[in-house]
Amino acid sequence: MTTRVIILNGGSSSGKSGIVRCLQAVLPDQWLAFGVDSLVEAMPARMRASDEGIVFAADGGVSVGADFRALDAAWVEGIVAMARAGARVVIDDVFLGGAASQQRWQKALGGLAVLWVGVRCESAVAAGREIARGDRVPGMAAAQAEVVHEGVFYDLEVDTTRTESLECARSIAAHLG
Amino acid sequence: MTTRVIILNGGSSSGKSGIVRCLQAVLPDQWLAFGVDSLVEAMPARMRASDEGIVFAADGGVSVGADFRALDAAWVEGIVAMARAGARVVIDDVFLGGAASQQRWQKALGGLAVLWVGVRCESAVAAGREIARGDRVPGMAAAQAEVVHEGVFYDLEVDTTRTESLECARSIAAHLG
Amino acid sequence: MTTRVIILNGGSSSGKSGIVRCLQAVLPDQWLAFGVDSLVEAMPARMRASDEGIVFAADGGVSVGADFRALDAAWVEGIVAMARAGARVVIDDVFLGGAASQQRWQKALGGLAVLWVGVRCESAVAAGREIARGDRVPGMAAAQAEVVHEGVFYDLEVDTTRTESLECARSIAAHLG
Amino acid sequence: MTTRVIILNGGSSSGKSGIVRCLQAVLPDQWLAFGVDSLVEAMPARMRASDEGIVFAADGGVSVGADFRALDAAWVEGIVAMARAGARVVIDDVFLGGAASQQRWQKALGGLAVLWVGVRCESAVAAGREIARGDRVPGMAAAQAEVVHEGVFYDLEVDTTRTESLECARSIAAHLG
Repeated sequence: MTTRVIILNGGSSSGKSGIVRCLQAVLPDQWLAFGVDSLVEAMPARMRASDEGIVFAADGGVSVGADFRALDAAWVEGIVAMARAGARVVIDDVFLGGAASQQRWQKALGGLAVLWVGVRCESAVAAGREIARGDRVPGMAAAQAEVVHEGVFYDLEVDTTRTESLECARSIAAHLG
Repeated sequence: MTTRVIILNGGSSSGKSGIVRCLQAVLPDQWLAFGVDSLVEAMPARMRASDEGIVFAADGGVSVGADFRALDAAWVEGIVAMARAGARVVIDDVFLGGAASQQRWQKALGGLAVLWVGVRCESAVAAGREIARGDRVPGMAAAQAEVVHEGVFYDLEVDTTRTESLECARSIAAHLG
Repeated sequence: MTTRVIILNGGSSSGKSGIVRCLQAVLPDQWLAFGVDSLVEAMPARMRASDEGIVFAADGGVSVGADFRALDAAWVEGIVAMARAGARVVIDDVFLGGAASQQRWQKALGGLAVLWVGVRCESAVAAGREIARGDRVPGMAAAQAEVVHEGVFYDLEVDTTRTESLECARSIAAHLG
Repeated sequence: MTTRVIILNGGSSSGKSGIVRCLQAVLPDQWLAFGVDSLVEAMPARMRASDEGIVFAADGGVSVGADFRALDAAWVEGIVAMARAGARVVIDDVFLGGAASQQRWQKALGGLAVLWVGVRCESAVAAGREIARGDRVPGMAAAQAEVVHEGVFYDLEVDTTRTESLECARSIAAHLG
C-alpha cells in the first residue's frame, strides 16, 4: 500500500515547517501540507483568547479547551478524508497529549498507511530559534521539547539540532521508498 | 437539518475573507474557515509557477492544471468530511468554472445542508480594492467579477459594493436562522 | 516648493493603509511609504509587551512608554531626512496625542512642504472593519476614531465611511497638483 | 564614541534576519531594525516588477534600476539620520555591488561609529534554507553567497553554516562591548 500520509510531531520551533516545505520540494509527487498552525488560523479569532479555545500563556504554556478539541477532532477526520480521496498529505502537529494525541490520529486513519516522524531538537537550541523567529511566545519551545514525544512511537526520527531541514527531508523521503 | 456548511462564492477582491471573519465573530457557534487561498498555501511552492499547478498571468488571468485539480478535488472531499464529523465550516471559493465548480461541491456534499451565498461587487470597485490590497495581480478582480457567478444558484446574495462586510455577515447569519 | 511629504492621520481601521497603497499606484512619481505599523515592527519584540514600549490593552486602549517615545522621535527625524535627501514619502500615523503629535512632525519638518490629510471613518463602520480584518484588538477603532483628530489641522480631509480608498487617493493626488 | 549603528551584510537566506531579532533580544538597549526587505516593502508595488525598480529573475538573479537606486540612497540617509538623532539602529543589507555598496553607507555615515558584520553561510546550506523558507525565488541564495562579500571589510564575521543565530548575535553583542 502506498503511503499517502506523513505525520511530523515535534515541539514548537523544532523545525517542522521548514522540513515540510523541503519535503514538498524533494518529493516527486505533489503533497498537500496542513498543520496545527493552519488549524488555529481557521478558527474564529475569538478562540485565540478563550479558555474554550486555545490560550498561549505568558510562560510559554499552551492549553486548549472544549471548543478547540471538538474542531480539532473534526479537522483530523477531514485531513484523513483528503488522503482517502487520493491526495498525499503531510501534517505537522504538536502532540501536547503525547501518546493520546497519536491515538487520536490512529483512530481516524484506520488502516491507512502512514509514516510517523519524530522531529527532535535540543531544548536550548529550539529556544534560541524561537527568539530568532520573533513571533512566538518565549518559553513554548522549551516547554514542549520533550513532553510531546512521551509515549509516541515513530517510523523515523530526525534531529534538527545539527542537521539542516533539507537533509532531514531527504531522510524522510528515502524512508518512503 | 442544521446547516453546517456555508459556501461563499465571489471574484477576487469581492470581499469574501472579510465577510468570513465577520461571520466567525457574529455566529454564536464556532465555525472553521477554509478557502481557495488556504488551499493554494497548502500546495507545494513549485505548483504556484507551473502549468500543472496554478498560474497567475500578468493580465489577471488564472489557469489551473491537472495537479491542481486533483488536489482540489481531494480537498473538497476533506472539507466536507469535517462537516460530516460535526464541525461547522464556512468556505470561500472562486468558481472559475461557474456552474461546474458548484456541482463539484454539490457532489461531495451529498445530502448535507448547505447555505449558498453569492458575493457580488461591482467590477470597478473590486478593481480599486485590489489596488488598495497591494498583494494581488492587477486585473484578477475585473476578470472574475462576473464570470464566477454564471449559472450558479444561491440561497442568498450579498453585494459589498456599498454594504460593509459586517452587515453582509449579519444578513447571512439571519438567513441561517 | 514641491511637496515631498504626505502625512495621513486617522484612527485604527480607518483605512489609511489602503489609501497609501492606492496613492503609490496613482501618483506618477515613486513614493516611499512608512507608518506606525512599520515602526512597531522595527522595534524589539519585547517592546510590544512592555510598559516602556507599547501596550495594547484588552479594551482597545493603546499606551506608549519612554522607550517607545525615544525611538519614535528618532524615527520621525529619519523619515523627514529621507525627504530632505530627495525621496517622496507618504506616512500614515495615529496621532494618539492629537495636536501634540502633529507638532512633533512639524518641528522635524522645519520648512519642508507637507500635505496634511485627515482620514475619517465613522466609529461604528471602523469597528466593523476591525472585525473584518481579524488581526486587531477589538476596541481600538472605536477608541481612536475621534480623539486622534482633536486640535489637528489638515489641508484635506477624506472620509472612508462611504468613499473607496482609490477615490480618496485620487482626491489627495489632485490636491498635490 | 558609542556605537549606534550595526550593519550586517550577507546573501539571501544567510540568516541575517534571525540574527537581527536575536540582537534585539540580547542587547540591553532598545535597537531599531531595518533592512533591504523593509525598504522593498516601502516601495510602490509596481516597482517590484519594473526594470526601473527591482526585478527578481527566475534564476535567482536580482537587478535594480534607477528608481530603486534613488529611493535607496535617500533611505540610507534617513536611516543614518535616525542614529544621529539618538536611536540605536541595526541594519541588514545585501551588498549586491560589493565594496561600492559599502561605500554608499560609509559616505552617509560620515564620522558615525559603526560595527560592520559579515554574515557568511556556505552556498549549499543557504540554498537548502531557501527551500525551507518557501517564499524566495530559488537560486538567490547561491547567486549571492560569495559576491556580496567581495572587497568588503568587516569588524567581525559570523558564519551561520554551523552556528545558531543566537550564538552569532552574542558574538556581535560581545564585540560591541
